Amino acid sequence: MGLMQVIVELKEMQSRSEAIRLQGKRLGCVPTMGALHEGHLELMREAKRRTGVVAASVFVNPTQFAPAEDLANYPRDREGDLKKMESAGVDIAFFPTAEAMYPKEARTWVTVEEITQELEGASRPTHFRGVTTVVLKLFHLMKPHLAVFGQKDYQQLKVIERMVKNLDLDIEIVPHPTVREPDGLAMSSRNRYLNPEERKQATALIRAIKKAQELVKQGECDPKKLVDEAKKIISKEPLAKADYVEVRDPETLKPIRRIEKSARMLLAVRVGKTRLIDNAELIR
Amino acid sequence: MGLMQVIVELKEMQSRSEAIRLQGKRLGCVPTMGALHEGHLELMREAKRRTGVVAASVFVNPTQFAPAEDLANYPRDREGDLKKMESAGVDIAFFPTAEAMYPKEARTWVTVEEITQELEGASRPTHFRGVTTVVLKLFHLMKPHLAVFGQKDYQQLKVIERMVKNLDLDIEIVPHPTVREPDGLAMSSRNRYLNPEERKQATALIRAIKKAQELVKQGECDPKKLVDEAKKIISKEPLAKADYVEVRDPETLKPIRRIEKSARMLLAVRVGKTRLIDNAELIR
Repeated sequence: MGLMQVIVELKEMQSRSEAIRLQGKRLGCVPTMGALHEGHLELMREAKRRTGVVAASVFVNPTQFAPAEDLANYPRDREGDLKKMESAGVDIAFFPTAEAMYPKEARTWVTVEEITQELEGASRPTHFRGVTTVVLKLFHLMKPHLAVFGQKDYQQLKVIERMVKNLDLDIEIVPHPTVREPDGLAMSSRNRYLNPEERKQATALIRAIKKAQELVKQGECDPKKLVDEAKKIISKEPLAKADYVEVRDPETLKPIRRIEKSARMLLAVRVGKTRLIDNAELIR
Repeated sequence: MGLMQVIVELKEMQSRSEAIRLQGKRLGCVPTMGALHEGHLELMREAKRRTGVVAASVFVNPTQFAPAEDLANYPRDREGDLKKMESAGVDIAFFPTAEAMYPKEARTWVTVEEITQELEGASRPTHFRGVTTVVLKLFHLMKPHLAVFGQKDYQQLKVIERMVKNLDLDIEIVPHPTVREPDGLAMSSRNRYLNPEERKQATALIRAIKKAQELVKQGECDPKKLVDEAKKIISKEPLAKADYVEVRDPETLKPIRRIEKSARMLLAVRVGKTRLIDNAELIR
């Protein structure tokens, strides 16, 4: 494809994607909120490996933030993002505006029931409605054959998979393993908010997960015991406070009584003022 | 295209549509609930005139019926429908099953706010959620460049237009004028339920509309007076009972105080046990 193309207009993105499809090429997409890090770039490289052409979007989606949340302060770095996208082999960088994505007459929502009420949805009742609505809009604009999503936002991935299946979208959802710092911290645009002491204590999330994985390997099948051990590790860090630590069914994200074959541990932890999430599979 | 193809499987419909698009052909679609009449066939012919290839679906969508409504008794005539579709130049007849459209794990809904709460939505709170969800699914399966909808279901048309715009679907929505019997009764699959006396009295709907149109032409701008005159005509028919008679803004369907340039009159009337709807523009 040569040089990366930057598109802002919705209709231009849509006709570009249609033209690529009509050429018989396969198109991959990676929706992001920008402030890109190595985790995002891995998703873009994965999309590139699987298709010929990659479109990646940067859009800080207002409808997935609650009024009290950090929309205004969410990190933005357009110039940095553009350089990183180009280095990752992105062909089309899509930067829609909030005014174009949500004009005054916007009244349509896509909602996925049940799975969106758990975990992140329990404390943020309209969060996933914002996510599914914007992702569906981006799919209609970018018209991809496949889309790559990181497992760091595991619940989001599962919600999107459900939406795609229920609405019969002809798009393959490719999950990508969480990309981590050398000490195991899951990469996140919010990590930049951590001061050096917070950054150190933030490794409690992956340490808690690793402890649970180890206990499951040793035969522990009781979610409650795993959660207790994980919480112990987090509570040892004075700047860390657990929002939730859960062991859930990996597909429905509902509570389970016992780990049969596998389960998912999911955590949300505040470290100072920064809220971090992480998750991993627990396999017997 | 030659002989009409009949498709039941969702994935087959989707790959057929994708193949047609990749051939550079334009594809029109007409979603229906079957029990086809001349009104439906006009939509199919209109789609055919505007594109090379037409796919029409027949699916009695359970999610747009309330539990007490006539889902089980809704007319079904597969053999008759197939013959009519072929005669109208349909290339692909799509007959998905309810089990395939709504598997057990279906949890995703598309909702359009505000406009869906008026008129038909006031007494049927989940009706339009069922309509928008199934139409979006059918769009994802049939992948049309354009879709033709009749103005007889005017609110449905406006809801779908809003959904298409808000979700950035790359599909042109083509409204088609209501097709009428020689005496003016709007064609409807439910007309077959009318006995001869009801059928006669059912013309009260179009007579009420014509009266309002005439009064507006004569300078009447007060919606209330138009509604009163229309209701008088309906109340003269002993078997007819108005559910609602309204004059509304033609885009938002909200109440208006005065007709400026144009407005929409919309009616729902029970004739015997059969509920009929109709609507028309009022122009000064």
